[in-house]
Amino acid sequence: MAGGQRLVVVGADAAGMSAAHQARRVTAARGHDLDVVVLERTTHTSYSACGIPYWVAGDVPDGSALVARTAQEHRAMGVALRTGVEVLALDLSRRTVRARDLASGDVENLPFDQLVLATGARAVAPDWATGGDGTPVPGVDVVKTLDDGRAWVDRLAGSAGRCPEHAVVVGGGYIGLEMAEAFVRRGLSTTLVTRGEVMGTLDRDLGERVRHALGRAGVEVVVGAEVDAVGTRPDGSVRCVSAGGRDFPGDVVALGLGARPASELAARAGLPLGDLGGLLPDDRQQVADGVWAAGDCCESVARIGGERVFVPLGTHANKQGRVAGENLAGGSARFEGVLGTAVTRFEAAGVEVEIGRTGPTSQQIARAGWDAVSLVTESTTASGYMPQASPIAVKVIADRATRRLLGVQLVGGRGTAKRVDTAAVALWTEQRVDDVAAMDLSYAPPFSPVWDPVQIACRRLADRL
Amino acid sequence: MAGGQRLVVVGADAAGMSAAHQARRVTAARGHDLDVVVLERTTHTSYSACGIPYWVAGDVPDGSALVARTAQEHRAMGVALRTGVEVLALDLSRRTVRARDLASGDVENLPFDQLVLATGARAVAPDWATGGDGTPVPGVDVVKTLDDGRAWVDRLAGSAGRCPEHAVVVGGGYIGLEMAEAFVRRGLSTTLVTRGEVMGTLDRDLGERVRHALGRAGVEVVVGAEVDAVGTRPDGSVRCVSAGGRDFPGDVVALGLGARPASELAARAGLPLGDLGGLLPDDRQQVADGVWAAGDCCESVARIGGERVFVPLGTHANKQGRVAGENLAGGSARFEGVLGTAVTRFEAAGVEVEIGRTGPTSQQIARAGWDAVSLVTESTTASGYMPQASPIAVKVIADRATRRLLGVQLVGGRGTAKRVDTAAVALWTEQRVDDVAAMDLSYAPPFSPVWDPVQIACRRLADRL
Repeated sequence: MAGGQRLVVVGADAAGMSAAHQARRVTAARGHDLDVVVLERTTHTSYSACGIPYWVAGDVPDGSALVARTAQEHRAMGVALRTGVEVLALDLSRRTVRARDLASGDVENLPFDQLVLATGARAVAPDWATGGDGTPVPGVDVVKTLDDGRAWVDRLAGSAGRCPEHAVVVGGGYIGLEMAEAFVRRGLSTTLVTRGEVMGTLDRDLGERVRHALGRAGVEVVVGAEVDAVGTRPDGSVRCVSAGGRDFPGDVVALGLGARPASELAARAGLPLGDLGGLLPDDRQQVADGVWAAGDCCESVARIGGERVFVPLGTHANKQGRVAGENLAGGSARFEGVLGTAVTRFEAAGVEVEIGRTGPTSQQIARAGWDAVSLVTESTTASGYMPQASPIAVKVIADRATRRLLGVQLVGGRGTAKRVDTAAVALWTEQRVDDVAAMDLSYAPPFSPVWDPVQIACRRLADRL
Repeated sequence: MAGGQRLVVVGADAAGMSAAHQARRVTAARGHDLDVVVLERTTHTSYSACGIPYWVAGDVPDGSALVARTAQEHRAMGVALRTGVEVLALDLSRRTVRARDLASGDVENLPFDQLVLATGARAVAPDWATGGDGTPVPGVDVVKTLDDGRAWVDRLAGSAGRCPEHAVVVGGGYIGLEMAEAFVRRGLSTTLVTRGEVMGTLDRDLGERVRHALGRAGVEVVVGAEVDAVGTRPDGSVRCVSAGGRDFPGDVVALGLGARPASELAARAGLPLGDLGGLLPDDRQQVADGVWAAGDCCESVARIGGERVFVPLGTHANKQGRVAGENLAGGSARFEGVLGTAVTRFEAAGVEVEIGRTGPTSQQIARAGWDAVSLVTESTTASGYMPQASPIAVKVIADRATRRLLGVQLVGGRGTAKRVDTAAVALWTEQRVDDVAAMDLSYAPPFSPVWDPVQIACRRLADRL
């Protein structure tokens, strides 16, 4: 890209700001100027949505701690960041963005040479959560933005005139589990309702273990049920939800039903969307000539299997933003796909369970037509004789013919979750289970049995193949 | 190997027993018989030497907990295990082992078809520790066998007629650090004396951080000094040690000066030894026709650089034993080298530091003639806003020309150590720093910043290259 051009970025969270800064860095290193304008609808930039449940739980003193970089800090780094500006339309042939300043109401057409779309995702809210007419039912809320987080903190502090005693969590995924943790730690009696098994990104046999852990912490877990109605008090606020023909009391109801790409703006401009509703960048994050997309508004490519997936996560948003920024500045970078590596935990009421997963699940593998074989191995997080040794279950899935590792899932006590990275690197580099069994992994009694649990599992599966 | 043969294994710890059982399994799977005789000088089998400091510290209630499998359990699995039997000589041409029953004094010549040498290593004890005449000075001891462990537990409980108040640890490596932890936790004022920097298997800049952590826990750390004399009480027991012209009080003195291969038996039988004093098996663990060696009596090959190294560790012993057992039974397995992956911690007096390392140090890399570049990156073990976030320093070393990762070292708070496995898999599979930066590693606020610290360090080094 020649210097003296303008880059417009839509969205000032992880993907957008990574793109903006990387584009500036690379352009500057080449001795060119780049006018970088970032337009953000809200007043928030670069915040950790993943941290909100811990703010609600009381681990994080204030929402401002979740902001990695404020608008002022971004501006000090040389980016013209304008908050409170909504982009109304993109004109890709005239190379302009039509934007409205939400405070003044002024609308302008902003020309661009390069455009990055980083519009993120929106949390899913079902019809019953809005009383059918689109008006949110007080006490029912998603967990997505800093404003959501603030509302949750206020709600638990009694902003509705009373401190809630009963919580319902709808959805058994990451946000569901983490909000259940927050509610139990805040002393609320908690019910979790989920359509499938708890932690649907795990195979059912491992998801079951998480369900049992929640049960031990006193969470009432309702699996295989969907919430289809909400009961309200005279003031309109939520009182209970109905699922599977039963009513569950809930002064507050947290929605953890996932997210969908916020891709309408791009679609209206004629950019194609995938089956999952996201933009479809190539591996350079390009969606059209001089137009780039990154983060939660995009679908990604699964590194194992190659299908399009939607994995809204800051790790990918950061990397994709960097790749887009690098390429639009004339560099050459590629986003190399996602494994679906993820971790979380539930730690409340004396129960501690950590969860890790990477690669496709057994179901996804079967759908892809692989002849896979899997094994669950029980081990301990530390040497069995150490006081910190907790049980850990490792599920390893491999291709029968090539012996290649396809996926690893872990559920266990403290020290479990981050072990998934060992598996993720092995998956990323296409190792066989035999290779993992031969590797020089670390051992000391407080940290591991002599053979690391991931390695034991791979060795056992290799022996069986 | 045809069935109906006899395998003799010398040594019943990790390497020997892994070889014995793997040989039995493979032979049985092929429908043959194998007469497996294991000869062990002591009464102990398959125990965790690494667990001894935690037994001394009080984490492990009894030494029996450190025994992974007793002699009876091994026998029940079909191995003729004879304890209290010392092997006096090997006759490789006549294919016999000359052994003495230590109880009865009887000597016999035991014929073998296949022989596995798994004689382990011996802890280094300097001349001053034995008063010059070979008699141990009471209160001065190594930390190697279960008998050593029992002696340490008794000593701290006052078996010498008084409870010790002052401890000296000689050596700043793994055992030194772990015994310092044990002593501080048991309430002893503790001095650690080491010839070089603390944790000499780290680069000095990271070793320094460990030294400062020990200091914060109240350990007096004396670096760059060697103990050259011991002062005794009238009853002959230790009172102090002298190092660098100063005296340090010590009612007990733990020796953590490393180990040397116990390879004399093999040497007397004419088998060649390496510069480090260990046997030199090929990658099938063979040292001569039908003669195999595994575990701490062997030198290993560094996977990066290719030189012979001596890394006495249960992980390698287990793997090498398995490889030897597989191959002597007619299979085809290879030991694929060591990276030198290792972890430990120091956790006492409110100070918690975890340590991980893999691959050669900067010094080793320089000696090997590589043009390497390195970087230390400061980060946190969890997202910075979480209460469990601790500082973590990650040193990454890469080859300038190829950008290949050569080594990674970590020092930090809880959650640091096991991250070395991420690096170990990347080293094992010969990744560039750029590759690591692109990988899909796990993130959630209690476990990691959005970019894992190992990944941040690799990305920064990639940006600089």
